[in-house]
Amino acid sequence: MAENNKPIGVFDSGIGGLSVLKQFIRFLPYENYIYLGDTARVPYGNRSDETVMRYATECTDFLLKQEVKLIVVACNTVSSVALDTVRKRANIPVIGMINPAAGAAIRASVNKKIGVIGTRATISSNAYEIALTELCQSNEIKVYSKACPLFVPLVEEGMVYHNAARLLADEYLEELKLHEIDTLVLGCTHYPLLSPLLTELLPGVSLIDSGEHAAVNAVRLLAEDKKLVKERDEYIIKPEIKFFVTDVSPTFYDLAQRFLGFPVDSPKLVTLE
Amino acid sequence: MAENNKPIGVFDSGIGGLSVLKQFIRFLPYENYIYLGDTARVPYGNRSDETVMRYATECTDFLLKQEVKLIVVACNTVSSVALDTVRKRANIPVIGMINPAAGAAIRASVNKKIGVIGTRATISSNAYEIALTELCQSNEIKVYSKACPLFVPLVEEGMVYHNAARLLADEYLEELKLHEIDTLVLGCTHYPLLSPLLTELLPGVSLIDSGEHAAVNAVRLLAEDKKLVKERDEYIIKPEIKFFVTDVSPTFYDLAQRFLGFPVDSPKLVTLE
Repeated sequence: MAENNKPIGVFDSGIGGLSVLKQFIRFLPYENYIYLGDTARVPYGNRSDETVMRYATECTDFLLKQEVKLIVVACNTVSSVALDTVRKRANIPVIGMINPAAGAAIRASVNKKIGVIGTRATISSNAYEIALTELCQSNEIKVYSKACPLFVPLVEEGMVYHNAARLLADEYLEELKLHEIDTLVLGCTHYPLLSPLLTELLPGVSLIDSGEHAAVNAVRLLAEDKKLVKERDEYIIKPEIKFFVTDVSPTFYDLAQRFLGFPVDSPKLVTLE
Repeated sequence: MAENNKPIGVFDSGIGGLSVLKQFIRFLPYENYIYLGDTARVPYGNRSDETVMRYATECTDFLLKQEVKLIVVACNTVSSVALDTVRKRANIPVIGMINPAAGAAIRASVNKKIGVIGTRATISSNAYEIALTELCQSNEIKVYSKACPLFVPLVEEGMVYHNAARLLADEYLEELKLHEIDTLVLGCTHYPLLSPLLTELLPGVSLIDSGEHAAVNAVRLLAEDKKLVKERDEYIIKPEIKFFVTDVSPTFYDLAQRFLGFPVDSPKLVTLE
């Protein structure tokens, strides 16, 4: 297959990575995509580093067999723990979630007080804090992190506009507000769905969507390597996506539509182990 | 000067184009920028096409003298009326506001009901409606347009969170809501500052920020031509921007900071005629 027409491969521990895929489709609408959700083993957050590395290797091998031209690690846990593992395995470009978002946060922040929210696992890993401090090469930056464990189930239940979501968000964000953060990294693939609420509760704070910045990085990288699909004349409404999952949950279609913004085709069930 | 290090030139009839510059800085933080605001002759919306073309030519010539590598027409009026004039004048790439946003709207919309809001001049010009219909090459798309004349002064007065803004927005958007649009083009440089309110009033509706899509188009275009500034290691907090205006209003600094998100240096006063 001509390099240009090869698909972009996106993998995640589950369906959350579809919010990342959404950003890729927004900025790279003419590309072909392969999405792999390891839904049988989600969430990766509670596994040991060794296990996450093994899972990530299996996902990488699967995408490489599909002859992708770029691998997007949409999973925050894999991006924190096993990005090097994926990079070493693949002889093609690999984009993770942490660094694009950390760079964007540093550039967006004026007062250098940056908040990070994520799952308990991501926050405990300090991955964003480490990336932010390393990239900034300065002690002047202040990073305030907060685990928001109930955001994922709220998003999955579709209750992002519920008053309960507002009450919980108010509590989770209280400390970050006291520290007067002006920038907030959404360190979990589910959180962009809470953006309207977060925007309302944190007026004037820049929200950093990792998927968005990863996607723009991909535009640059593929354009420089002349590997983008040739822009088509017709305006396709629905892009070319092949979905692979390791388990089809009863809520897959509903969740996928909410994360992507449009109805999805049947996923293909695969085994990775 | 090496082609890569030449600045990107952005011009607008006034300071509204700074919301476009903001998006460029977000996705192309390492570039050098020249911003030209023709503040002495703002707004262009009420002028004849001939006059707008003449003003646009003058702005273009000014930027060409500054040896820019790309011209961004941040002004919706110039983008509707005089983009070809600018393109013919410049032997470098030119990016306008209409087509990137129209393309993004078509791709974002599922139900093919797209709203467009703008100044009275932009809405009367039908520029977005024409672009949307042409790009879509289909009669299935429905475009609903609404002029929102009070949004610009509200934004300029910094009253985007005021209850009056909410009341007015409610009224302006009523018809679009009845038509069940799922996508809304913000057809004016000032409107992205109203995004939090619009997001709240139109839950589930995709807001299309012209500046954002113009910026991603620029990433692609410059990357393919190998004309991007080489990515720097250090994370600059404040990018390199030279501001030129034809009139310094008393509110310039305050407005510019609100549009860009950070304090700006003194603009240089220039004459275009």
